[in-house]
Amino acid sequence: MNADLIRAAAVRLDGHVRRTPLLSDPALDRLAGRRVFVKAECLQHTGSFKARGGWAAVSALPAGTRGVLALSSGNHAQGVARAAAAHGLPCTVVMPADAPAAKRAGVEGWGATVVPYDRAREDREALAARIAEARGLVLIPPFDHPEVIAGQGTTGLEIAAQAAEEGVTGGEVLVCCGGGGLSAGIALALEAEAPAFRVRPVEPAGFDDMARSLAAGERLCNAPGGVSLCDAILTPRPGALTFPVLRRLAGPGLAVTDAEALAAMALAFRHLRLVLEPGGAVALAAALFRGAALEGDAVIAVATGGNVDADLFARALARGAPSP
Amino acid sequence: MNADLIRAAAVRLDGHVRRTPLLSDPALDRLAGRRVFVKAECLQHTGSFKARGGWAAVSALPAGTRGVLALSSGNHAQGVARAAAAHGLPCTVVMPADAPAAKRAGVEGWGATVVPYDRAREDREALAARIAEARGLVLIPPFDHPEVIAGQGTTGLEIAAQAAEEGVTGGEVLVCCGGGGLSAGIALALEAEAPAFRVRPVEPAGFDDMARSLAAGERLCNAPGGVSLCDAILTPRPGALTFPVLRRLAGPGLAVTDAEALAAMALAFRHLRLVLEPGGAVALAAALFRGAALEGDAVIAVATGGNVDADLFARALARGAPSP
Repeated sequence: MNADLIRAAAVRLDGHVRRTPLLSDPALDRLAGRRVFVKAECLQHTGSFKARGGWAAVSALPAGTRGVLALSSGNHAQGVARAAAAHGLPCTVVMPADAPAAKRAGVEGWGATVVPYDRAREDREALAARIAEARGLVLIPPFDHPEVIAGQGTTGLEIAAQAAEEGVTGGEVLVCCGGGGLSAGIALALEAEAPAFRVRPVEPAGFDDMARSLAAGERLCNAPGGVSLCDAILTPRPGALTFPVLRRLAGPGLAVTDAEALAAMALAFRHLRLVLEPGGAVALAAALFRGAALEGDAVIAVATGGNVDADLFARALARGAPSP
Repeated sequence: MNADLIRAAAVRLDGHVRRTPLLSDPALDRLAGRRVFVKAECLQHTGSFKARGGWAAVSALPAGTRGVLALSSGNHAQGVARAAAAHGLPCTVVMPADAPAAKRAGVEGWGATVVPYDRAREDREALAARIAEARGLVLIPPFDHPEVIAGQGTTGLEIAAQAAEEGVTGGEVLVCCGGGGLSAGIALALEAEAPAFRVRPVEPAGFDDMARSLAAGERLCNAPGGVSLCDAILTPRPGALTFPVLRRLAGPGLAVTDAEALAAMALAFRHLRLVLEPGGAVALAAALFRGAALEGDAVIAVATGGNVDADLFARALARGAPSP
C-alpha cells in the first residue's frame, strides 16, 4: 500500500464525502496545555469517517457486481450502505443484535437489509460467508482491505492541508483505533504529504491490542471478556494489512478509560458543539488527559464518529467535565 | 445599507471566522418532505454567528479606541469579547444575572469583565451607558448597527456559494430571528448574490414581534411577561435598521413553540451530530414542522448557535423526537 491508492480514492470520493472542518477552542487548549485541533469526522455523511472507506471500496468494484455485504456494529455498515445505495447495489449488513439503536436505524435508513446475530453465541464470519455465498454478495471488510484503508486515508490528505492553513506543519495526530484502517490510511497519507506528522493510535483501556502489538512488534489479541462503552472500536486484534503500516509509521499507542472518553464527549459538547460517540472521543480524550505522553505544542485529534444513543450522551453530560 | 458593506466585512473577517459547513441528512429530508440544508453556525468560533458581527464591528473601530462594551445575554457578548481580545481592546459585558452559565463562562474565557444585572429590576441601557461613559468604552449594539449587520451578512455570502455547490439556486432561507441583524444581513447578501432566495425570519411563539411587524408594516413590540427557552433571541421589538431591510426583502415570519425547538435539537443531535441551543434551533424547527407554510423543494435553515447548558440539552434529548 502507498499514497497513490489514497490519492486515487480521493478523486473518486470528491463530491461524495465532506471535507470535514478542523476545529479548535481556546478552552480546550488551556485544558491540554497545548493547541488542540479536532478533525470533526462526526460531521461526515453517516456520522463517521466510515463513509470514506465504504465509498472507496464500493466505487472500486467491477461492473456486474450483484451486491455487497458488511459485517459491522454500525458505522462501517452505514458507510457501505450509503455507498451501495448511491451505486444502485443491494446491501446486506450482519450486525450484533445489541448494536446501538441509532446505528441500526442509520443502516436501515440507507435501504440496507440488517441480519442480526448474537455476539456471544454466533460465529459472525461464518454467518457472513454463508449469506455472501448464497446471495452472490461481495464482502466489504471493515478495515483490512486496501481500498477501505485508502478511503480512510483521504482524511489524512485533508489533515495535512488544513493543519498547514492553521500554521501547524508537524506534530502528533491522535486517531481513534479499532482494527487500524483509519490510523494506517492517515499514516500513509501523512508520510507522503506531511512527513513531520506522526500518527498515534488511541484505544479504550482493555482493548489496547494495537498499542501492545506495536510495543511487541507482533500482532497480539485482546483478552476476551472485556467491557467498554466504545462499541465502534472494539476489535480483537490489529489487521494483517494495517499492522505493518503502523509498525513502520506510527508512534506508541495510547489508551484511555471509558470515564475519560465520556469527559471528552462532555467537553466537545460544550466547547465545540459536536456530538461524539465514546469510541469517537478517545483520541480527544488522549489529547486532553494524556498530555505527559505527547510531544509538541500542538496536537491533532481525529473525532471519528457521533452515532450515540441519547441516553448514553445524556449520561456523559451528567458526569460533567473538568473546567479548563 | 447594501451588500458592499458586507463584502468589505467579509474581507476583514477572512481568516478570523470559520466558513461553517452546510449540512444535510436524508432522514431530515424525509421528515420535512423536501431537501433540508442546515448552515451550521453553531460551529462558528464562540459557538454562534455573533463572532462575525463582533469582529466586523470591532475591526472597524478607529485607532485610539479605549475599549468596548456589549449588552447581551451571551452570544453577542462572546463575539465581541473574542474580537476585542484579538484587537488588544478591553471588553466589558453587561449581562443578565440569569444568563446560561455556559454563556457567562464563554465570555469570561475571552478575558472580558462581566457586569451582571437584574433583568426584572434594572434598566440595562442606563446601566450600560453609565459604565461606557465612566470607562470611555464604545458600545457595540447586538443588532441595530451597520457593521454588525454587515458581519452577520457574510453568512449569506457563504450560503449563496454553498447552496450553488449543492445545486440549489433559489428557495427559502429560514433564519432564527431576535432583533433581525442576521436576517437582515443575509437578506442583503442574497439580494446581491443570489436573488432567487428569500429570507423568512423564525421566532419563538410569544416573541414573534418581527413576524407581526412585517405583517403590520410597522415595528410592533412583544407583550411583556412572555416566557421561552430561546434566551438568545428574546428581543422586545425589531431594530430600526433591520426592520426596513426585512420589510423590503423578507417573506412572512414564522413562529415555533419551545417543544418544537427542543424536538429540532434532538433531531440535529441524532442526524447531524450538532449541538444546538433552543434559540439556534427555531429555524430548523420551522423547516421540519412548518412545511405547509414553506415553498419549494429545498429549504435552508440557519442553525445560529449551540451554547446550551447540559441539563437543558439532556432535557431536549429525553423528550425524544419524531422518527422520520
